[in-house]
Amino acid sequence: MGDLVESLAFKNNRQILLVVLDGLGGVPRNGKTELESSWMPNLNRLAANSSLGLMHPVEPGVTPGSGPAHIALFGYDPVELRVGRGVLEALGIGFDVRPGDVCFRANLATIDSAGRVRDRRAARIPTAQSAPLCERLQAKIRRIEDVEVIVRPGIEHRFVVVLRGPGLSDAICESDPLHDGEPPLEVKPADIDATRTARIANEFIRRCGEELAAEPQANYVLLRGPALLPHIPSMAERFRLNPACIAAYPMYRGLAKLVGMRILDAGDTWETELAALQRHRDEHDFFFFHIKDLDKAGENGDFERKQELLEQLDEELVTRLEALKFDVLCITGDHSTPALLGGHSWHPVPLLIHSSYCWPQGGALEFGERACGRGILGTRRSRELMTLLLAHGLKLKKFGA
Amino acid sequence: MGDLVESLAFKNNRQILLVVLDGLGGVPRNGKTELESSWMPNLNRLAANSSLGLMHPVEPGVTPGSGPAHIALFGYDPVELRVGRGVLEALGIGFDVRPGDVCFRANLATIDSAGRVRDRRAARIPTAQSAPLCERLQAKIRRIEDVEVIVRPGIEHRFVVVLRGPGLSDAICESDPLHDGEPPLEVKPADIDATRTARIANEFIRRCGEELAAEPQANYVLLRGPALLPHIPSMAERFRLNPACIAAYPMYRGLAKLVGMRILDAGDTWETELAALQRHRDEHDFFFFHIKDLDKAGENGDFERKQELLEQLDEELVTRLEALKFDVLCITGDHSTPALLGGHSWHPVPLLIHSSYCWPQGGALEFGERACGRGILGTRRSRELMTLLLAHGLKLKKFGA
Repeated sequence: MGDLVESLAFKNNRQILLVVLDGLGGVPRNGKTELESSWMPNLNRLAANSSLGLMHPVEPGVTPGSGPAHIALFGYDPVELRVGRGVLEALGIGFDVRPGDVCFRANLATIDSAGRVRDRRAARIPTAQSAPLCERLQAKIRRIEDVEVIVRPGIEHRFVVVLRGPGLSDAICESDPLHDGEPPLEVKPADIDATRTARIANEFIRRCGEELAAEPQANYVLLRGPALLPHIPSMAERFRLNPACIAAYPMYRGLAKLVGMRILDAGDTWETELAALQRHRDEHDFFFFHIKDLDKAGENGDFERKQELLEQLDEELVTRLEALKFDVLCITGDHSTPALLGGHSWHPVPLLIHSSYCWPQGGALEFGERACGRGILGTRRSRELMTLLLAHGLKLKKFGA
Repeated sequence: MGDLVESLAFKNNRQILLVVLDGLGGVPRNGKTELESSWMPNLNRLAANSSLGLMHPVEPGVTPGSGPAHIALFGYDPVELRVGRGVLEALGIGFDVRPGDVCFRANLATIDSAGRVRDRRAARIPTAQSAPLCERLQAKIRRIEDVEVIVRPGIEHRFVVVLRGPGLSDAICESDPLHDGEPPLEVKPADIDATRTARIANEFIRRCGEELAAEPQANYVLLRGPALLPHIPSMAERFRLNPACIAAYPMYRGLAKLVGMRILDAGDTWETELAALQRHRDEHDFFFFHIKDLDKAGENGDFERKQELLEQLDEELVTRLEALKFDVLCITGDHSTPALLGGHSWHPVPLLIHSSYCWPQGGALEFGERACGRGILGTRRSRELMTLLLAHGLKLKKFGA
């Protein structure tokens, strides 16, 4: 599938705007979902003039994390192309991951005198205390053998470790024993090529232990989720696009960067994101425009807040996005985050594609899960979206004669 | 796909009830199918509060036998995982097939003095006469070389032969020449490892011929459809379920046993099946509940009888199944058996999933083929059903971070 589209894609001047409302879909409460029960005159009018559908982020029934969900929206197979935990964590704090880097999610932890982990999270040490400790570790440990060591603080006990150097491997085990009361694990290589990386990781842990020995709580570190940045052919290579990303959260900027998007400085509100889009309107033929807020409301199980945000989005954003007159305007989500479930879910996500070449259903159609389920685009996989957007942008040659 | 779901499945206390109405779907007569023209207030009410869809048992256009149709419902790929004819025949008479057994469908046949098959079905000898002959064969032939030989009577000329012993193979040919007037075939091995099995099969046929020589009609046997029980990872292994089967017919109990279900003693009526479900309600997190009757009416081409049974099911079963308050209730079929066709068909099968997390369509929706075709679940493959049921049971971890 990917190969076919790549062989057909060509460059033209038409522009595509992909608006991703993170956590868009929901589940009914008293018969209606968050979307269905919101007052959204603008989105509903747009829906009546667009092609609608639903998308399974990965497979029917599978609930995705943000990584696979976005990878699929960008036109990649999220099952084949797995972005490891360590890389996602590094992207999440805005770290500029490079090919060959091995990234870890790391924990500050408490170890007792017998060498057993007493608390895998160092009593959830506050960020104000953990960040200086990470800076101290970075100051003391800059290099092990021929490998650069990068330490970056995160939230509370969490931080990120990156090993940068030639010939590193992520085929190594974690040091986290996963249960308090057990000694940390030695980092072991899964194959011969990973021997040196495992040795360096163990040496890093040992030196952190030395450095933190006098700390009351955070006197040790655990390394988790080792992951190498996978090789990913860029969207430019695959789809002949010149893509840009507008996102307030580092994780999404990081994912966009993985597929070769230019990351625009977009601030951290809808207003600043919209301003960035207006400012750069003519510089790219593809924009990924990410809005985080709905997902947070869903994660918090806050049905009313999600509704409120949808109505606000409808009022403040939709007509202004339309006014930019992109040739193709797509509004969808990366995954559903129903307030009723308080987290990501497997439910397929509403999809709206507006262009001069869509098949609008007209009438009093609304932009809701069930209206989209009756939509002309049917229910498909998110990874198929890019092909549809390129088609609507007239960016795909005819297949065969 | 299978691998992905397996890697995400985990155990919790939520319970799933999968109700399989064998041969559920139909084809319109005077504009309405059996389902669409039945008076089913309970099923229609449930449908209005559930997610609906259609399922292709195997592929669009492919009519399945009961074996592949159920294998797919249980979450396995029915094209990859083929259960051979011999094994299905053995399961159909309630024989307890074990790994390594080679099973045959066998025929009592008539052979003439020149050694040609005169009647491949021994004039469809009545069961009352054929069963004692099978018992006689079993009494005389208990072992060939180091292999146990098991002979079990079936209906009329049909019976089952099982070879049980180490190192047997099903890579052997049938002895059935497929046309009257030709000599029976020698059983030949398809590869070197099957040499011994072929020899034993030929010896079995020879001894049966000796034993039956004096019979007027059934003086010979033909061996057909040799099949080894395939290795099948259980539903427990794959989906972390503790599954149980309630089915009145041996074939379906046999298929359920293949995937590791516990077979509950369920009698042979709806009432006894329902009583078994009520009795064991708390012992399992997954129940496969099979109702055979619709299929028989369809096979007989009896549209009215199928309608009558649907109305009876609606009245006698639906509310009592609902009253058991499973977290996930699914009602579907293994395949369609339209009365108009008098047999299994390729038509996709109506699907209903009820849980706290479904997307009901509300209104005056009915549980019929065309209403399901407009359903939010779309039209998918039966093998995807298990993923959806696990999802609705919150039994799948998030994929990726």
